[in-house]
Amino acid sequence: MKKIAVVVAGCGVYDGAEIHETVLTMLAISRMGAKYQLFAPDVEQAHVVNHITGQPTTEIRNVLVESARIARGDIKPVSELIVSDFDALILPGGFGVAKNLCNYAFKGSECQTLPEVAKAIKAMHEASKPIGAMCIAPVVLANVLASVQVTIGNDPSTSQHLAELGATHIETAATQIVADKANKVFTTPCYMLNSSIAEIADGCQNLVDAILECR
Amino acid sequence: MKKIAVVVAGCGVYDGAEIHETVLTMLAISRMGAKYQLFAPDVEQAHVVNHITGQPTTEIRNVLVESARIARGDIKPVSELIVSDFDALILPGGFGVAKNLCNYAFKGSECQTLPEVAKAIKAMHEASKPIGAMCIAPVVLANVLASVQVTIGNDPSTSQHLAELGATHIETAATQIVADKANKVFTTPCYMLNSSIAEIADGCQNLVDAILECR
Repeated sequence: MKKIAVVVAGCGVYDGAEIHETVLTMLAISRMGAKYQLFAPDVEQAHVVNHITGQPTTEIRNVLVESARIARGDIKPVSELIVSDFDALILPGGFGVAKNLCNYAFKGSECQTLPEVAKAIKAMHEASKPIGAMCIAPVVLANVLASVQVTIGNDPSTSQHLAELGATHIETAATQIVADKANKVFTTPCYMLNSSIAEIADGCQNLVDAILECR
Repeated sequence: MKKIAVVVAGCGVYDGAEIHETVLTMLAISRMGAKYQLFAPDVEQAHVVNHITGQPTTEIRNVLVESARIARGDIKPVSELIVSDFDALILPGGFGVAKNLCNYAFKGSECQTLPEVAKAIKAMHEASKPIGAMCIAPVVLANVLASVQVTIGNDPSTSQHLAELGATHIETAATQIVADKANKVFTTPCYMLNSSIAEIADGCQNLVDAILECR
C-alpha cells in the first residue's frame, strides 16, 4: 500500500491550510486505497485571521496544533518526516502556505522556505519520489527546487514571481494538472481559480492519480 | 436549484464541527447540482481543545468565527436562517454539536438545545422540509423533535440517551442511513463509527441523496 506524506500549514484558508483542499486530498488518497500521514511545522502562525472580517486578530496559534484539527489529532511535526517511509509528498494550498511554510506572502520572489519544509522537499526530490502541490503551494516548490514546470492557474503577478524564482509557469483551467515528469512534480490550481468544491475534489483526485501512476 | 442550509458548530472534531463531515457534506451537495449556505450560532465555544493533546486550553473562541474557516468566510448567524429560503437543513457532527449547539456532552439526556438552533429545526420540521443529521448530531434532533427514528451507529450509552429523549434508535454500519420518512428526518453515523474518510464521503453522499429525493 502506497503512503503519501501531506504537509499542511494550519487550518483555514486565510492564515493556514485551505481546509477543502486538504480534506479532499485525504479523500482522494483514501479512495485510491493508499494511506496518508499529515505533517505540519511546529512553529507559531505568522498571524491569526478572523475568517468573517478577513482582519488579523491579536491571538497566537501554533501551525502544528491548528493543523491537527483537520487531521483529527493524527499529525506529526514535519521535522520528523522520514522520506524512506513515504512514496510521495503533497502540499495542499491556502494562504498559510505562503505565510507559515514560506514567507512568499510578505517577501514575494525574495521569499525563503522554512528549513524543515525545504529539507523534506529536497530529500523527496533527491530520492526521485513524486511531489504534488496545489493552489499557491507551487511557489514553495519553485523556491526550493527552482527549475520546475508548475501551474497556479492564470494569475499574472504570481506567475511572474514563479519565473523570478526560476520556475516555468503553465496556465491551466479548473481541475487540470501540470505534470513535470522529468522532475516528478505535479501541480493543480484549486482555489487559485474561482472553483466549486466539486471542481476542487476533481483537481485533488487528478493530482493524486497522477502521483500514484508516476514511475 | 435546491438550497440546503448546513448548520455547523465550530471547526475541529473535539470542540467544534467535524471538519471532514462538513466538507464532504458541502461536496455531496455540490456534486448533486444543489447549493449550500453555512450557518453557525454567534456564541462562545464551550471550550477550546488542543487537538494533539486532547486537553482544553485557556483560549476563548467564537463558534461563528471558527466555523467561517470551513466556509471560507461565507457563513451567516443561525439566528438569520429563513426557513422559506431553503429546501432542507443538515447538521454535520463533531463534539462541538454536543457542546456548542446543545449541552449533551455535559448534561446527557437532561440536555438543552441553543434556542436559535432549536427554532430553526422546529420551523423546518413544521414546514415539512427534510432534516439530516450525522454523527452525534441526531441527539439535537431527538432533543428538539423527540419522537423521531435516528441512528448514531451502535454506541449503547448514546442510544440509551436517545431513548430517554423520546427517540427510537436503529443500529447502522458505516455509510448506512436511517430514513424516518414520516418525519422527513435522515441520519447517518459517520465518525461515531471507526470509519475511513472514503466511508464518510459515501455516508454524506447517501444522506444528501436521500434528502434531495424526499418528497
